[in-house]
Amino acid sequence: MLDLIRSLAIENTTKVVLLSLDGLGGLPRPETGRSELETARLPNLSALATAAACGLLRHVAPGITPGSGPGHLGLFGYDPIAYQVGRGVLESLGIEFDLRAGDLAARGNFCTVDGRGLITDRRAGRIATDVCVRLTERLRTIRLPGVEVFVEPVKEHRFVLVLRGADLSGPLSETDPQALGKAPLPVRALEPPAARAAGLINTFIDEARKRLVDAAPANMILLRGFDLLPALPRFPEVFALRAAAIAAYPMYRGLAKLVGMDVLKTGGTFADELGTLREHWQAYDFFFVHYKDTDKAGEDGHFDAKVEALERFDSFIPSIRDLGPDVLVVTGDHATPSILAAHGWQPVPVLVWSRYCGADPVTAFTERACAAGTLGLLPAHHLMPLVMANAMRLTKFGA
Amino acid sequence: MLDLIRSLAIENTTKVVLLSLDGLGGLPRPETGRSELETARLPNLSALATAAACGLLRHVAPGITPGSGPGHLGLFGYDPIAYQVGRGVLESLGIEFDLRAGDLAARGNFCTVDGRGLITDRRAGRIATDVCVRLTERLRTIRLPGVEVFVEPVKEHRFVLVLRGADLSGPLSETDPQALGKAPLPVRALEPPAARAAGLINTFIDEARKRLVDAAPANMILLRGFDLLPALPRFPEVFALRAAAIAAYPMYRGLAKLVGMDVLKTGGTFADELGTLREHWQAYDFFFVHYKDTDKAGEDGHFDAKVEALERFDSFIPSIRDLGPDVLVVTGDHATPSILAAHGWQPVPVLVWSRYCGADPVTAFTERACAAGTLGLLPAHHLMPLVMANAMRLTKFGA
Repeated sequence: MLDLIRSLAIENTTKVVLLSLDGLGGLPRPETGRSELETARLPNLSALATAAACGLLRHVAPGITPGSGPGHLGLFGYDPIAYQVGRGVLESLGIEFDLRAGDLAARGNFCTVDGRGLITDRRAGRIATDVCVRLTERLRTIRLPGVEVFVEPVKEHRFVLVLRGADLSGPLSETDPQALGKAPLPVRALEPPAARAAGLINTFIDEARKRLVDAAPANMILLRGFDLLPALPRFPEVFALRAAAIAAYPMYRGLAKLVGMDVLKTGGTFADELGTLREHWQAYDFFFVHYKDTDKAGEDGHFDAKVEALERFDSFIPSIRDLGPDVLVVTGDHATPSILAAHGWQPVPVLVWSRYCGADPVTAFTERACAAGTLGLLPAHHLMPLVMANAMRLTKFGA
Repeated sequence: MLDLIRSLAIENTTKVVLLSLDGLGGLPRPETGRSELETARLPNLSALATAAACGLLRHVAPGITPGSGPGHLGLFGYDPIAYQVGRGVLESLGIEFDLRAGDLAARGNFCTVDGRGLITDRRAGRIATDVCVRLTERLRTIRLPGVEVFVEPVKEHRFVLVLRGADLSGPLSETDPQALGKAPLPVRALEPPAARAAGLINTFIDEARKRLVDAAPANMILLRGFDLLPALPRFPEVFALRAAAIAAYPMYRGLAKLVGMDVLKTGGTFADELGTLREHWQAYDFFFVHYKDTDKAGEDGHFDAKVEALERFDSFIPSIRDLGPDVLVVTGDHATPSILAAHGWQPVPVLVWSRYCGADPVTAFTERACAAGTLGLLPAHHLMPLVMANAMRLTKFGA
C-alpha cells in the first residue's frame, strides 16, 4: 500500500495539519450516559465537524488496544501490525536516545537478588532516579567485543541498554523470570541469527553482576523487550511531503523521528507547540501536532479533567484555522476512556476538513456522532492517503 | 491474527455469554416492507441494543452465503476462508461421530445402478432410514489394510464413511458423476500424497459393490466431500478461556468440539439449554449458547413462525441477564430470510453489551438499525477479539 501511495504522490503547495489528541476517545460516564467528548463544550470542534467529513479510526484491529507506538504509526500511514516497534526501541525513543538503524535496544530494570542470586525484588525497591543514574554509569564501563555499548537511565529502576555494531540480530528471550525466588534467566537466541547478540548480552549481564555486587538493593539487572530499530519507509519520501513534528513529549518526538519527520524544538505547553507551528509555517507541507493532556487525564481516571483538557484544546482551534491550512485533521492515537483509566480498544473520532472533503450530516465531534460520518470506520493507516487526496497531492491510479 | 490474540490474551474472572440465533438475519416481507426482526415485538432485545454497541457481522465475504460450518467458525474467531472444514467432516460432526485428528471423512449416498453399472437414481429412491442402517452394517464388514473403517448411517440414503490410520491424506476427487446413465467414477488423488488414500477408497468401493449387489434400489454407493479433520488452533488456548458449548443440535455441538470447547450435556429445548447454562455458570468463563428455532422457521419459509421464534427468544433474555454476565453478545451464524427459505448472504445483526462497550444511537435489534451502530460492518472473526476486550481479557498491543 505504501508503495502504491509513493507511486501516486505528487508535489503541491497545500498545507496539512494533523492534530493528534492523545487518548482522544472515551466512554460514557455511567451517571450521565455521556462520554467526555459528549460532556465537553466544544463549539469550535462542533463547527469544524459540521464542515468536515467525519468518521472513526481503528488503529490496529477490532478489540485490540493500541500502545502509543502502534497508535501513532497508524496515524502516520503505517499498518501497525506489519511495522511492529518493540518496547526496547520505544523506551529509547522515550528518552530521545539517538537510535540508528541496526541498533539493538532493550528495556532494563535494576533488581535485588539475595546471596544465592535469587530475585527478591524485581524493581529494586524503585530506587531513586539519581541512584539509577549513578549505577548506569558503572554499567557503561562494560566493554563488549565488536560493538558499542550504551546504558541510559530512564526513571527510578528503569534504564535502556543499546548495542550498536554490525550483524546484531533478534529475536532474543527475556531474562526476567517474572517471579520472586528465581534467578534471572540467561538470554536465548529465539532464531539462529540471534546467537551472536545473545552471547554478547549474556557477557554484559555477567559483567553487570560483578559491577553491582555491592549496590544492594540494586545489585542485579533484568533485561526484556529486545528489539532492533526497524527499517521503516520514510514518511517524507512515501508522501512527498516536507514533514514536521511538534510534540512536547519525547516519546512522540521519537516516533516521528523514527519515520523521518523533522522534529521541531518546542516548549512544554500546547500554546508553545502552536507558536512553533506558526514559526515554521512556511518551511513545511505537513505538521503533526501532538496534544497530551487528554491522555494524561484519562489515564488518571479523571473524567472532569479530560473534559477540561478537551475544552482547552477546543479554544485553540480558531488560531490554527487562522493559519489557513488546506487540510485540517483532528483525531487521536487511541482511546483513553476515563472510566477505564487506561488505553482502550474503542475506535477514535476523526474529522478531515478541506475544500473537497465532502461534508456529512455530523455536527458534533463525538464518538457516537462520528459513527454516522461518511468516512465510516477506517483503519488508521488509511487516513494518510485520504489526507493526501484532500491536499490534492495524489494523482490518479490507472489511466 | 489468532497468534496476535493468543499473545495478548490474559486471565480474568469475567464471564462471557455468546448467544447465537441460527439464521438470525432476514429480509423485508414485500407486503409490509419489514423484516422478521422489524416485525417481532422484542422489548428485551431492544433494551439490550439501546445499552449495547451494535453492528452487522459479515461471516465470509460480500455476497457469500455461509453454511453452518463457516458461520460458526467465524463466530468462534476463525477466518472461515483460512480454516475450511469439508462436508465429510461436517456430516460426521452432525451425527456426533467422534472424529479424531487425521481422520479422513466423506459423505456417502446409496444409489441405484443398472445391469451395466450405470446410475439410474443418484439417491436410490430415498430409501427409508432403517434400510440405510441395515446396509451400512453390510459396508462395515469391509476391511482395508492398515486403516480402521467406520460407516455410519445419517438419514434416508445418506451415510458417512470415515477412514482412520496413519498417513491418510487428501485431496481426493468425488465419485458422483452428477448425471444419470453414467458409471460412478473411481476416486483420484488430486495431489500425489493422496495416492494411498485413493487406492484404499477404490478398494472400499469395489467391496461395497459386491456386498450391495442384491440390495436394489440401493445397490451401489457414491462418495464425495472427502476431507481430513483440520487441525484448528484450540479456542480455549487462543483466548485463554474455559469455554463451554450448549447446543441441542449435534452439528453445533460438533463444531464447538472441533475448536476444543467443552460440550455440555443438555436437553432439547432452549429452556433446557438455559438450565444447563445456570448449572455450569461457575465452572466456565465463556458460554456459546445456540438457538435453532429461527433458522428452522426461515428455512421453511415461514415468516410468521420466525417472528414467533424471535419473540420466544426475547422472552428468555431477562433470565440470562439475571446471571450477571460481564459481556453478553447476541448474533447469528448467518441470515436465513424467510422469503428465501434458505441461508442468505446478508450481514447479520450483532450486539455486544458490557460495562465498556460504548453505547451507540441504536435502539432496536434489527438489520437496518444495527447498520448505524458503532461496531460497523464487521468480519465475523473479528467479533471474538472485541468480546475479549470487553471482558478485559486482552492486554495492550505495543507500548
